[in-house]
Amino acid sequence: MIKVITSKNNERVKFAYSLKENKNRKIHQMFLAETFKSLQMALANNMVVEIFATEYVDAPSEIPQNLVSEEVLKKLSSNVNPEGVVFIAKMKQYEVSNPNKILYLDNISDPGNMGTLIRTALAFDYDLVVTSENCVSIYNEKVINSSKGAIFQIPVITGQLKDYIGTHQILVTNLSKKAVDFNSIEIPEKFVLVLGNESHGVSKEIIKLATTEIIIPIKNIDSLNVAIAGGILMNKIH
Amino acid sequence: MIKVITSKNNERVKFAYSLKENKNRKIHQMFLAETFKSLQMALANNMVVEIFATEYVDAPSEIPQNLVSEEVLKKLSSNVNPEGVVFIAKMKQYEVSNPNKILYLDNISDPGNMGTLIRTALAFDYDLVVTSENCVSIYNEKVINSSKGAIFQIPVITGQLKDYIGTHQILVTNLSKKAVDFNSIEIPEKFVLVLGNESHGVSKEIIKLATTEIIIPIKNIDSLNVAIAGGILMNKIH
Repeated sequence: MIKVITSKNNERVKFAYSLKENKNRKIHQMFLAETFKSLQMALANNMVVEIFATEYVDAPSEIPQNLVSEEVLKKLSSNVNPEGVVFIAKMKQYEVSNPNKILYLDNISDPGNMGTLIRTALAFDYDLVVTSENCVSIYNEKVINSSKGAIFQIPVITGQLKDYIGTHQILVTNLSKKAVDFNSIEIPEKFVLVLGNESHGVSKEIIKLATTEIIIPIKNIDSLNVAIAGGILMNKIH
Repeated sequence: MIKVITSKNNERVKFAYSLKENKNRKIHQMFLAETFKSLQMALANNMVVEIFATEYVDAPSEIPQNLVSEEVLKKLSSNVNPEGVVFIAKMKQYEVSNPNKILYLDNISDPGNMGTLIRTALAFDYDLVVTSENCVSIYNEKVINSSKGAIFQIPVITGQLKDYIGTHQILVTNLSKKAVDFNSIEIPEKFVLVLGNESHGVSKEIIKLATTEIIIPIKNIDSLNVAIAGGILMNKIH
């Protein structure tokens, strides 16, 4: 099913464009993504609904494909120089049985940080990413872009930390005196690594649930960027 | 010297605004920065030329200070919700004698990555950051913002990797078969850690200069974000 679209006012283009808003993403349980690499990863996980590309893309024939003008592509893309493909993906409801390695994100507000943390969790073979209700939407285009396709490969759910108490060690990053150097801890078999908001760190209610508070020893400056801290910790704790 | 400015067309405001362009930054050897924390770090390093703030800021009286309207502040700020202070800083010419720990950035194009890498280099007590000619300008406002004031505290220069051959071990990140797991290397006393472009990695000419090619073992995905890779490597190699 290949159609040619040259008008920005085409109904399919207007529908795809509407997914730039969180409200519409929620209604339709779909979101926009782009780049060929992300498309590949999304295809491999059966998450592609419809493709908009400037040249024919190799994809299963049952997935509607639209050949679009540069102008239409630019309208749908969130990049200044789009790669040539934008696609609609469907949200996936994950049920992860018995995850061992979990990343919990508490009130992460920057989409670049969020996407990068999801990408890094996939790279260190985490089983699950859980985000608090007040995190930036994982379907925000900037999150999708900076996840570099990881969003299609690692389960990400919205959830509560308390669901993992008793079964998992809760390792919470916190710049407190109580916190221990992360290099000195033993890696538990089942754990949740908790990272917090860019300005305020992990919230007090969440810190209370910690089995261990951990810290990365640094000099000269108060803190690391949260995605960098996450990378350093996940490289060791996985 | 405190002046009150309410017009966006005031000469000092227009001059400060002109520093948003690289061309003007080069001519005047000055750049724009913001947030109270950055101001503190810039003051401590005698780099503040002039302050624009919505309320009086505690700073040496010889530094011109302008009390400005919200409207003026918003014009000068690059943030959607500015903190209340923007300032002009002067570029510093660094002469770093005998640096041991150097971060070399080859063609880094994303300002967020650049700023974060500078912040992380400061946190792990590096002596010097050297950027290749084709990196994004370190005085780009997004670089300054994401460095979180580190730009005022760690020497950053534009330079060439070949200047460190013979004196320093050259550790180059490269996704090649020749590359060794970074966990297995001994930390040299004098080294340059080299990170490369977001899409293309370190350039071929630079890889040729490597003493050792290193890699971070990951799974499921081709690569890490360059700032994350930098964080993981600097945490170990410093």
